[in-house]
Amino acid sequence: MSLLKENVTGLILALVSSAFIGSSFIIKKQGLRRAASVFGVRAGVGGYYYLLEPLWWVGMITMIVGEVANFVAYAFAPAVLVTPLGALSIIVSAVLADLILKEKLHKLGVLGCVMCIAGSIIIVIHAPKEDPISSVLQIWNMATQPAFLAYVGSVVVLVFILVFHFAPRCGHTNVLVYTGICSLMGSLSVMSVKALGTSLKLTIEGKNQLVYPETWFFMLVVAICVVMQMNYLNKALDTFNTAIVSPIYYVMFTTLTILASVIMFKDWDGQSGSTIASEICGFIVVLSGTIMLHATKDFERTHSFRGGTPSSPTLSVRLYNGNGDMLHKEDEENESPECISRRQDLC
Amino acid sequence: MSLLKENVTGLILALVSSAFIGSSFIIKKQGLRRAASVFGVRAGVGGYYYLLEPLWWVGMITMIVGEVANFVAYAFAPAVLVTPLGALSIIVSAVLADLILKEKLHKLGVLGCVMCIAGSIIIVIHAPKEDPISSVLQIWNMATQPAFLAYVGSVVVLVFILVFHFAPRCGHTNVLVYTGICSLMGSLSVMSVKALGTSLKLTIEGKNQLVYPETWFFMLVVAICVVMQMNYLNKALDTFNTAIVSPIYYVMFTTLTILASVIMFKDWDGQSGSTIASEICGFIVVLSGTIMLHATKDFERTHSFRGGTPSSPTLSVRLYNGNGDMLHKEDEENESPECISRRQDLC
Repeated sequence: MSLLKENVTGLILALVSSAFIGSSFIIKKQGLRRAASVFGVRAGVGGYYYLLEPLWWVGMITMIVGEVANFVAYAFAPAVLVTPLGALSIIVSAVLADLILKEKLHKLGVLGCVMCIAGSIIIVIHAPKEDPISSVLQIWNMATQPAFLAYVGSVVVLVFILVFHFAPRCGHTNVLVYTGICSLMGSLSVMSVKALGTSLKLTIEGKNQLVYPETWFFMLVVAICVVMQMNYLNKALDTFNTAIVSPIYYVMFTTLTILASVIMFKDWDGQSGSTIASEICGFIVVLSGTIMLHATKDFERTHSFRGGTPSSPTLSVRLYNGNGDMLHKEDEENESPECISRRQDLC
Repeated sequence: MSLLKENVTGLILALVSSAFIGSSFIIKKQGLRRAASVFGVRAGVGGYYYLLEPLWWVGMITMIVGEVANFVAYAFAPAVLVTPLGALSIIVSAVLADLILKEKLHKLGVLGCVMCIAGSIIIVIHAPKEDPISSVLQIWNMATQPAFLAYVGSVVVLVFILVFHFAPRCGHTNVLVYTGICSLMGSLSVMSVKALGTSLKLTIEGKNQLVYPETWFFMLVVAICVVMQMNYLNKALDTFNTAIVSPIYYVMFTTLTILASVIMFKDWDGQSGSTIASEICGFIVVLSGTIMLHATKDFERTHSFRGGTPSSPTLSVRLYNGNGDMLHKEDEENESPECISRRQDLC
């Protein structure tokens, strides 16, 4: 497959992934609502009745398909392209929420959508074309180059400091501690997910990569990073409001992932200064659009219930693929069955 | 001067212009405030005491310098580059208002500023390089090419329909009528201002262009367009709230100016599809940022006085140079001496 075709395949997979993930939230929310109305409302029971609702499972499957597409996208296109496009799923869910769930989108939220799209187009236009990879050993060489080892070393040191020094002292007062740990580990997750995805892609194409211990090493790294990320993201969501955690996490995670990808895959080598500047601007625009969509959500929903148990069953799935776009988490959380019953109790 | 140098000169002039125009609003506002406190407050007198306040004149001169820089910028760089950069003056005044006048900038307003800057960088990176012009006759040829004549024809017809059919019927109920006339005429103003500016530049460089009747014709067109634009902008501002008129006018004016420039100067010929797409995205981002800065202004200032006489003395100056960025007009209007006295009367 030619270089451009690989990039286009990755791009399409990333877009499909966003469409699936974005709509999965709407489907699941409808499932939760239906479950709450069908099985009656029992406050504080903490019910898991939604597991009996087929619509909820349709949403769950939609999300898994989306996450798999996202995972595969990393095997085809640079992380610099795939990661920021995750923001598009927020648009999909915002627009569908407006159309189907009748959750009116604020005017500035529409502007946020427009910006996410404009920024994404700029990123896509200026995305680098990565050299085709023919073996996992090639990725291994990239991962063991001094510059990337220095990055990994810094990340590990920073995570250690955050976990053992800052977390016990100010983890519960400063939102940056837990989200920082998640974002740092998240950037390593994405890199190892990309390595693993590429290995699996090559294996499927007939070049068996499972014979190399490097492939299994990357698998181990994925597992460790994802468990760490999950653990501290749950802590962050338990401690702070999702509306605060999500944008901070999204900004830090995406920035660090791009940084890691640029170091490891030398994405910016051979690109002109103006192309890199355009990419960065596009990225800033997407971030701004995302923050805006988030900020304006509150304008319309100030009366909605906030809080609740954040450890939704989807969390592990979303994290498994190293996709850090946790912005949807809020919907999930706000509409968890407990919340619905509690809210209806209040009415 | 080389092609790139011309573009850079135009870019610097456009940036300087934005800095001057942006700060002029702050200086004038301080002048108005000081005048109101020094000469006492007389409600409804409609006083022109601010004319005795030196600070107000400093602001006025700053604005004239900015407008002249803007006018000259059009002679060096394409309108596609100069016009959207006008949005940067809004950032300058918003930031200075925050620092000097202590008018706190909303968090989303800061995001709007970031977006205007990111969008401007994208526009600058992808701006076309216009062929150097050696005589006013060359511009005349561009202006009389069939495509541009068709554009001028459509504009004239549309303006006629708006002026004679729609203005008497729904000019006072539909904000698009007056702003539409202004924007359509504005796009012709900028084109003729660019022609005139280039002629004057060439004349100063030693190639006298005043011997050609074409130069005088462009001067006449500038005069007619600017008078029309002034007249209908005043009507629009008299009839509707500035907060509604300004963004609509800015969007329509900038879009039509870019369209006119693309037709007349063939800015997009020889540019790749991706470059043009980037330019359009950059433009959309700047527009979104501008709208956002405007929308969030209201969040902080809902209690401030709105209304008042819109025909400020600066209007003619701003329009004279075909610069349609009337977004600052609001500050001017809100803080006209009458408003200050009326507001203080209410306290």
